[in-house]
Amino acid sequence: MKPLWIIKIGGNVIDNPEALDSFLKDFSALDGAKVLIHGGGKIATQIAKGLGVETQMVNGRRITDAEMLKIVTMVYGGLVNKNVVAKLQANGTNAIGMTGADGNVIKAIKRPVKEVDFGFVGDLTETSINDTTLSQILEAGLIPVFAALTHDGNGQILNTNADTIASALAVGLSSRYETKLIYCFEKNGVLTDINNDDSVIAKINPAYFEELTQQGIIADGMLPKLQNAFAAISNGVKEVYIGNAGKLSDINQGKDFGTCLSL
Amino acid sequence: MKPLWIIKIGGNVIDNPEALDSFLKDFSALDGAKVLIHGGGKIATQIAKGLGVETQMVNGRRITDAEMLKIVTMVYGGLVNKNVVAKLQANGTNAIGMTGADGNVIKAIKRPVKEVDFGFVGDLTETSINDTTLSQILEAGLIPVFAALTHDGNGQILNTNADTIASALAVGLSSRYETKLIYCFEKNGVLTDINNDDSVIAKINPAYFEELTQQGIIADGMLPKLQNAFAAISNGVKEVYIGNAGKLSDINQGKDFGTCLSL
Repeated sequence: MKPLWIIKIGGNVIDNPEALDSFLKDFSALDGAKVLIHGGGKIATQIAKGLGVETQMVNGRRITDAEMLKIVTMVYGGLVNKNVVAKLQANGTNAIGMTGADGNVIKAIKRPVKEVDFGFVGDLTETSINDTTLSQILEAGLIPVFAALTHDGNGQILNTNADTIASALAVGLSSRYETKLIYCFEKNGVLTDINNDDSVIAKINPAYFEELTQQGIIADGMLPKLQNAFAAISNGVKEVYIGNAGKLSDINQGKDFGTCLSL
Repeated sequence: MKPLWIIKIGGNVIDNPEALDSFLKDFSALDGAKVLIHGGGKIATQIAKGLGVETQMVNGRRITDAEMLKIVTMVYGGLVNKNVVAKLQANGTNAIGMTGADGNVIKAIKRPVKEVDFGFVGDLTETSINDTTLSQILEAGLIPVFAALTHDGNGQILNTNADTIASALAVGLSSRYETKLIYCFEKNGVLTDINNDDSVIAKINPAYFEELTQQGIIADGMLPKLQNAFAAISNGVKEVYIGNAGKLSDINQGKDFGTCLSL
């Protein structure tokens, strides 16, 4: 099977024009088929403020009411996505901006209301990814760039977590491609000492993951991140990398990039 | 050659949710390959006002400074485009939202500053349309839905007139498809009496066009519209229709739709 990189960048890269330009250059230099998923950064919150729409967060997640949905659709799907695509084109990468609605490639279910009503937020299922259309787009030599939006198939756009989309794409495309998932964030990788950015753990397999968890070295926010990564691996993803967006060029140079999780 | 419908809807349809839903249903029912191009409607002006960005128009054209470009990129490329795509998906049409930057399908040149500085506005050339990538997308069974945005190939998004994009797509794809261009607007077609919406001229060929122009029946805003239409026809487009967005279903039923221009 052909390799396919699936790379997610967070808001910290989107919010910093220089970091974004540098990342997009490195992304363009990466050989082979690839997919980019981007978050929205602080721009959505700024635009919401400008328009007098209140941003509500619960446990670090955005509540997406009808007005906020308009804003994230504008900002993620329009402003951020099209500028990333235009910049990639300038770097010689034949990018095509997408949401899950485009080509019906990611169909989600509106999150059921339990303790919290998250509003127009989409959850993914095992059948969310349309690998047929996605592989047609990839085989045409196009590089999909996803805003973190999906649809429900009944005309409703839904706001969907970018990490979740990246993971679902990597799993959903693993029957056609050797998928490698990269989560870019602000640190150099999974660290043994959270205060020392050089203390990167190069490789983690499931047994070592258990050991690190029992020792308390992996805890807090990193624990669910790695649990999700190993879930993706047990569902067909070859490798998951967690590393610094600014160091993506290390992969091209054959160096270690961040922390590599695999079986 | 296979037929290809290229249909442009204006802001008046976008601004009216019921008219839009009805149009998208009719568009979905139209057999065969097709492309939709949409304007932005009044939403961009409303959002601009909400954000304190002044809308400047010269001769009915929007001046697109850096702040206004952000707004049209958000509204046309995000809010309007993604909602149209999601609604088409609900109607069983496998729509894919695009701008000229996506897949590098429409490359424009920033309009040179003469008497007026239109700002980030893109003009099209004979080589603007990338028919190779567009036909790959069409052959995959996807229905491109264009926001009226292009790019310059150097990372800059440009605001571009939707009528011009529609015409350029029809001409640029005419070597691969039998292209038929439809301009939907608020009237039933080209009228002999501007006050009588039933006075539609069913067919106009170049000789009749000259006659109607000399008689003063075609004048004002309709004159350049029809000149552009005949220019498209002399550059390979089979037929150009000008008619009412609310009556698109007439085409499916084999009835006359608006005014048909052809050789």
